[in-house]
Amino acid sequence: MTAQQKLQQKINQNLHICVGLDTDLKKIPDHLKNVSNPIVEFNKVIIENTYKEAAAYKINFAFYEKDGAKGIDNLYKTLELIPDDVLTIADAKRGDIGNTSRMYAESIYNHFNFDSVTLHPYMGFDSLSPFFDYKDKINFILALTSNKGSEDFEKLKLPDGKFLFQKVIEKVVDWNKNLNCGIVFGATNSSELRENVSNIKNLPVLLPGIGAQGGSIEEVVTIFNENNSNQFLINISRSLIYADSSIDFAAATSKTIKDYNSLIRSLS
Amino acid sequence: MTAQQKLQQKINQNLHICVGLDTDLKKIPDHLKNVSNPIVEFNKVIIENTYKEAAAYKINFAFYEKDGAKGIDNLYKTLELIPDDVLTIADAKRGDIGNTSRMYAESIYNHFNFDSVTLHPYMGFDSLSPFFDYKDKINFILALTSNKGSEDFEKLKLPDGKFLFQKVIEKVVDWNKNLNCGIVFGATNSSELRENVSNIKNLPVLLPGIGAQGGSIEEVVTIFNENNSNQFLINISRSLIYADSSIDFAAATSKTIKDYNSLIRSLS
Repeated sequence: MTAQQKLQQKINQNLHICVGLDTDLKKIPDHLKNVSNPIVEFNKVIIENTYKEAAAYKINFAFYEKDGAKGIDNLYKTLELIPDDVLTIADAKRGDIGNTSRMYAESIYNHFNFDSVTLHPYMGFDSLSPFFDYKDKINFILALTSNKGSEDFEKLKLPDGKFLFQKVIEKVVDWNKNLNCGIVFGATNSSELRENVSNIKNLPVLLPGIGAQGGSIEEVVTIFNENNSNQFLINISRSLIYADSSIDFAAATSKTIKDYNSLIRSLS
Repeated sequence: MTAQQKLQQKINQNLHICVGLDTDLKKIPDHLKNVSNPIVEFNKVIIENTYKEAAAYKINFAFYEKDGAKGIDNLYKTLELIPDDVLTIADAKRGDIGNTSRMYAESIYNHFNFDSVTLHPYMGFDSLSPFFDYKDKINFILALTSNKGSEDFEKLKLPDGKFLFQKVIEKVVDWNKNLNCGIVFGATNSSELRENVSNIKNLPVLLPGIGAQGGSIEEVVTIFNENNSNQFLINISRSLIYADSSIDFAAATSKTIKDYNSLIRSLS
């Protein structure tokens, strides 16, 4: 199944939650800290208790890379636990000169076999095109991010009145020849989302920033509904996977994702 | 020794070449392809034959990550081969929300113990500040890159007549409170370098793009000389480490870096 098919199948079921596996040994429940591989065991429980309700899993590379070779091994093992019909996103925020981006694309798409990746637009087309060559994958490019620093450059105004992030959206829409581009748009910027959602056309939008970062799921879903679009993935990391730190954490995570899905359905 | 001290010591010896270890199994000499660990063996020979002439080693993460856990292991082994007094640069082009950038910084600075890193500015201050907290390291932030795609966003003009990459330089100079910021500036853009070198103040500049990408070492060195600055590192990857593919490749690489250093001295 292509990445596009996996995503559409979930969207057709009105599933939009992307589970962010930002797994941090310091934050997982205490009773798991002494098992042989706490990170993978935690991810296993989270995946088993969310996969029927999840539209995607986003693996934040930083949380794995920081453990070196062991972390990379944990990343593989985690990928193996994710059912084949659920989209996997490598949240790696890559972007380099063509020669190097080719290597990163090979790593993420051939080596790890992810369905999707997040990319930095700063270096322009030829830094992204090696990823675009993988037609059956989805490349989510950062437009407007959820953090305060988005004001430093992303929200700079250009002479034509557009913001830099709008220029990025415009270019990505233009570069979407293989129908394998998506946009990252921080859910903390709901007014900008409202103003720009129609410019994103039918590209899938990955929305981080809900939960710990303060974005509102109701606002985001309402904006897409009002624009007759369902091409969105709402990433939730900390407030979902660390919903509870007791021995019953799986039940709390399971209830949390179900509640999010109910809320999304209630808004439709 | 701090990263700043390592760099200054080499610059004081008029050493400016950064050896880019973009090691690719397909490109290393045939006679090394059958040894037990060709990547590390090749790097070992390159390092042994360049370290007296090198100001830094830049490890391009893509070339290691694509081999998964084995590649990470090769990255460690390569770092161990680099003498302690030579700056090591993680060419990883990171940049993410604060919570995640903290993890990347921990990975690169604590786990791998690199002296330095390359970073994407797009997400702004709080995506970089976790790296800035490491005072004894050097954070090279992308301003103007050496690839064609630099025209897409980096060279966009802002209403005040400045280009986006100039705004990045301005901000980084302002953010350099811990004296641990540097700038990445593509050597293929020599006229822009000439116009902007004084705006970079005394921040160290890492210059990719010489050799395979077409930048001129004479032009770059002359620009710094004319501005009475010696705070620059010229990265050379492919045209140095693959100077020759025969059994005598080490001699060719050794001669190449000596020739570059002679050329730099001759221009002073």
